[in-house]
Amino acid sequence: MKTAIIGAGLIGSGWAIVFARAGFEVALYDGVAGAAERAVALIAQRLHDLEEHRLIADRAAILARIRVAASLAEAVEKAGYIQENVFETVETKRAIFRELDAVVGADTLIGSSSSGIPASAFTGHVACRSRCLVAHPANPPYLIPIVELVPAPWTLPETVKRVRALMTDAGQEPIELTREIQGFVLNRLQSGLLAEAWQLVAEGIASVADIDRTVSAGLGLRWSFMGPFETIDLNAPGGVADYAQRFGGLYREIRQSRGTAGDWNAELIAQVEAERRKALPAEALGARAVWRDRRLMGLAREKHRAEREEG
Amino acid sequence: MKTAIIGAGLIGSGWAIVFARAGFEVALYDGVAGAAERAVALIAQRLHDLEEHRLIADRAAILARIRVAASLAEAVEKAGYIQENVFETVETKRAIFRELDAVVGADTLIGSSSSGIPASAFTGHVACRSRCLVAHPANPPYLIPIVELVPAPWTLPETVKRVRALMTDAGQEPIELTREIQGFVLNRLQSGLLAEAWQLVAEGIASVADIDRTVSAGLGLRWSFMGPFETIDLNAPGGVADYAQRFGGLYREIRQSRGTAGDWNAELIAQVEAERRKALPAEALGARAVWRDRRLMGLAREKHRAEREEG
Repeated sequence: MKTAIIGAGLIGSGWAIVFARAGFEVALYDGVAGAAERAVALIAQRLHDLEEHRLIADRAAILARIRVAASLAEAVEKAGYIQENVFETVETKRAIFRELDAVVGADTLIGSSSSGIPASAFTGHVACRSRCLVAHPANPPYLIPIVELVPAPWTLPETVKRVRALMTDAGQEPIELTREIQGFVLNRLQSGLLAEAWQLVAEGIASVADIDRTVSAGLGLRWSFMGPFETIDLNAPGGVADYAQRFGGLYREIRQSRGTAGDWNAELIAQVEAERRKALPAEALGARAVWRDRRLMGLAREKHRAEREEG
Repeated sequence: MKTAIIGAGLIGSGWAIVFARAGFEVALYDGVAGAAERAVALIAQRLHDLEEHRLIADRAAILARIRVAASLAEAVEKAGYIQENVFETVETKRAIFRELDAVVGADTLIGSSSSGIPASAFTGHVACRSRCLVAHPANPPYLIPIVELVPAPWTLPETVKRVRALMTDAGQEPIELTREIQGFVLNRLQSGLLAEAWQLVAEGIASVADIDRTVSAGLGLRWSFMGPFETIDLNAPGGVADYAQRFGGLYREIRQSRGTAGDWNAELIAQVEAERRKALPAEALGARAVWRDRRLMGLAREKHRAEREEG
């Protein structure tokens, strides 16, 4: 499949690596003369690093799949998917989507890398809007595979489904939001942890370095291979509902101290428990905890290796 | 140095591995007859796993440093440090500290593995209270090195300092709280992220699995080797204050939507920026971002390895 990258800054360059690594053809376009050529040089350097770290095998073949397009029309011609990465203002996004609308194929899907502005703010005026959505990556997308798919009210479910499949084919880990919400999921989760971190600093409970260490030598180890719900699901013998039974009181009191105790209610706990038990039956909890510890051991070994290498 | 482990359940067994691995002598005591012997069998199995994963070199020597004590007095005799891990109720903790007080050496320090009850609730009545504090581990402590040191009002600063040094010698990563606070730091940070996760589920924004994936394939990758403040410090060219300048508005609006917008204020941002710039000068930000990407590459390689191994 051919993909088009519109806007060849850091994020656009990262996407080019993702798609070319997966075997897709990539056309790179930037409205600023020379920018796409500079991006190709940066991409070549990044591919060199990835090869050195044994994360890719054939640097030259990957690079050969990326070419600079001379115009927007040339970039998107016959593209199955377009990833838009222009400067993040509503005006700039609206303008590029108007331009794209004039040249895009009848079946082409368009994802925007927008990290904060929802697609409804910049795709309402275009004819292809049912095939547009936000596909928000982390940076760099070729090392951090999460992609948040956020549909506008007029995005077809079929669009989300097809982009999810395409991103999975590209080696990414897409998630779907049912509707637009400020900050999407990733930054909202981050904001929750940071809010508590800021408050602990404000109250003089611990230093910034010690708060950071609590995550880098504690919470973050598990979270690098399983999410927050799976973490608590495995932290009590009977799963997440059992965990809530044991520790819900503590968490409710912590949240009350911050003026927000709405979470950890019975209905929510039952809902999450049901979804987790579908994903992992109660009788498999023990085996999964063994898996968790094996992953933690692999992670510990990798951390030791990296620290030795750094001296 | 000799250490004593009081209470030989999962956490006590984990501590025995930590201290014996670091070369300390370990006396293991449990009030329930046979429990310490069962713990030694469990420890032997865990050491076997650690050796298989190339995380320890000499299993037999480590195991040889752990012995079962026949009484509390025998366990703590000549111990430089005692780690208490009895059942977590105020009554049980108070009782064991009274027992310890009668036999403990004049210079011995005592850390409690308490995950929620502060030391002030169970050490106020003992003569040795200035040498007592909470030393809260994650589970298992030999794979997740964080230890939260939480002093009671009567804990001497010297006690915290010495336990911090001892934990560092043991290969752990201690952090210090300036005073007691419910949930300490680790669970408070976790509660912040979970609060947002619960709300996203309640609002039907994303599935439990997709919220988990946002962390395990996104936020958690960076957080496994650097904390939340260092993460945002490296996510804007000019560091954390620059990041707050660019994204503080978004975060404030997200927090406002949850009824808590007190964080991200100018004074706090300046304080964290100052602490970060002491830890990492502005001119070193670029080099540290290169370090971050190298660590991400090592982590990606390890994840691929683990997933291949799992088939």
